[in-house]
Amino acid sequence: MIPPVDSRDDILTPALLVDLDAMEANIARMAAHLAGRGRGFRPHGKTHKCPAIAERLIAAGAVGICAAKLSEAEVFAAHGIPGLLVTTPVIGPPKIARAIHLAARAPDTIFSVDDPGNVRAFDEAAGAAGVAVNLAVDLFFGRTGIPPGQPALELARLIHGLAHARFAGLQAYDAAASHTTGYEARVARTRATMAQAVDTRRLIEQSGMPCPMVSSGSTGTYSIDAEIDGITELQPGSFLFMDVDYSRVGGPDEGPYRDFTRALTVITTVVSKLETAAIVDGGYKAFSTDRPLVPEAVDLPGARYAWAGDEHGRLDLSHVTRDVRVGDRIEFAVPHCDPTVNLYDRMYAVRGGRVEAVWPIAARGMSQ
Amino acid sequence: MIPPVDSRDDILTPALLVDLDAMEANIARMAAHLAGRGRGFRPHGKTHKCPAIAERLIAAGAVGICAAKLSEAEVFAAHGIPGLLVTTPVIGPPKIARAIHLAARAPDTIFSVDDPGNVRAFDEAAGAAGVAVNLAVDLFFGRTGIPPGQPALELARLIHGLAHARFAGLQAYDAAASHTTGYEARVARTRATMAQAVDTRRLIEQSGMPCPMVSSGSTGTYSIDAEIDGITELQPGSFLFMDVDYSRVGGPDEGPYRDFTRALTVITTVVSKLETAAIVDGGYKAFSTDRPLVPEAVDLPGARYAWAGDEHGRLDLSHVTRDVRVGDRIEFAVPHCDPTVNLYDRMYAVRGGRVEAVWPIAARGMSQ
Repeated sequence: MIPPVDSRDDILTPALLVDLDAMEANIARMAAHLAGRGRGFRPHGKTHKCPAIAERLIAAGAVGICAAKLSEAEVFAAHGIPGLLVTTPVIGPPKIARAIHLAARAPDTIFSVDDPGNVRAFDEAAGAAGVAVNLAVDLFFGRTGIPPGQPALELARLIHGLAHARFAGLQAYDAAASHTTGYEARVARTRATMAQAVDTRRLIEQSGMPCPMVSSGSTGTYSIDAEIDGITELQPGSFLFMDVDYSRVGGPDEGPYRDFTRALTVITTVVSKLETAAIVDGGYKAFSTDRPLVPEAVDLPGARYAWAGDEHGRLDLSHVTRDVRVGDRIEFAVPHCDPTVNLYDRMYAVRGGRVEAVWPIAARGMSQ
Repeated sequence: MIPPVDSRDDILTPALLVDLDAMEANIARMAAHLAGRGRGFRPHGKTHKCPAIAERLIAAGAVGICAAKLSEAEVFAAHGIPGLLVTTPVIGPPKIARAIHLAARAPDTIFSVDDPGNVRAFDEAAGAAGVAVNLAVDLFFGRTGIPPGQPALELARLIHGLAHARFAGLQAYDAAASHTTGYEARVARTRATMAQAVDTRRLIEQSGMPCPMVSSGSTGTYSIDAEIDGITELQPGSFLFMDVDYSRVGGPDEGPYRDFTRALTVITTVVSKLETAAIVDGGYKAFSTDRPLVPEAVDLPGARYAWAGDEHGRLDLSHVTRDVRVGDRIEFAVPHCDPTVNLYDRMYAVRGGRVEAVWPIAARGMSQ
């Protein structure tokens, strides 16, 4: 029912757009920064859920792609994406069976673990299937994970001693660090938590086990993590697209965070017009609402968006000088990129006024 | 990749569940209430986006199904659902062409309009296709629509005078009334706005035009609207499922709103365990976040949920007496049903411990 489209002006709304010039510049910048510091680049696929983008990241030198969920990893594997790292625990026999099936097809896949019972279940399922499975110890910095230091060492030792599991290293993502506002505060938090990750790596190696990977970092902390010896690779995601949230975490000069350029927008249409307000066809089902932020019109100075239900937003035009009419198209920066992308089945890849491709967001909704 | 499932305990998480006993009771109660007062029942499909549920509503006596978007209506029409009412404006030539195509296949479909230019565009496209199109005048109560009274009369007259458009009546949804907290405040608001709708109907009929429909109402106001003469039908949606938000709008006895029973839940798994907290596998991508509310555990007294990112929630267990372990399954009432349903591709229809069906949410993401 959605026809093919060549011109940006013909995209039916609401729709998710990615600006290819901006995204390509973001990828090139991140890849060059990490290569220059000898860190691996394993960007997070939970942001885009899109095999076409994963392919471009691999082509730009990424060693692999992270996935938050087993089902996301299955989609990427089905598209031939190598080096998958599942960053959160995979729990329960049916999912472990699927994980082992994935490990058989894509033997370089790594799964994150933080629980001895879960580790043993992985080992048994791998043994029954006659494969080996790579397990990374997930370190606790406030969400999932096992505490760094001795507890993590013991879990690594358990993995190391099992017949069908291989210890792959440490998964060391600190969610709170990524979104700490203020660059100096972010530096302090990141250095403190990543020192624990690097110390844990040292402890494990001193115990005679190789610890080939410490995977950390995010869009907010990449330039901090990349300077820390002992961190082997980074897993940023939002740098591809950027959003209103990340534009507010603050850059090194105390100004806005400008390392990457906004590449993701949602295009809407004015569907109803009031005296000093316009109703656009993008609401809770077109934008994520998990931040105390609203969509920002990118080309209509003075316009202020307010939520107006599942399908609508109300745009206050009292400070807008341009005439706005029913049928006008208005584009917005999104409050938070990852959950916004997860609302859409496809992404329009645009360059200037042209639609170069329509990419299926093949792992959208893949959470089970 | 998602296997068939018979037992509720085997549903992979996170997943959306509908309790059939509860939903069937909700449907029976609403249908009986409206039938008893001689009002039509055209429940809103934006809540469920699910043809299997639309079929059950029609079987329970609904005259049709509302759709917020043209693309939702297309999905329902493809499944043979009659009496479609598209409740928000359809703007621009490509969408109007699709609307006319739909009108040709499903001639009883009604489209809502609030703008003379849009009305003329509909008429021209219908004429070019050799069909007639039913248009309802959308009344303004704070979002889309044209002001009740004289402006609405003039728009009705425009439609009435055109060759290929038929005036179908008034679309009179007051979003603010539905969610007004406190029953008496909701009565006052609903009576005030619906009096304007009924007066507008009278004005139109006094001008010599039939006005066969005034479609209004919601889960929060159905018992109020159903007593107002001149309102011909109601379009509630959330009564099917209920959610944390609607449980707080207040009932007639100043207590909670209990007219309908919670039928919708999200089931999650504990994937990581801390000392007095559990991490469950449901976060921003498993629940809507548009209300200042959190998911509520339905069978774990004392547990308090806090958001913990895209894929996770943190459950404070300090006031929970039961032992909670990795792998435990925890079910939650959802903050707001409509945008939560829109996150899922399928809904597990359960009765007690059995999965009776897995229903595709075929219109999920249908917004373009």
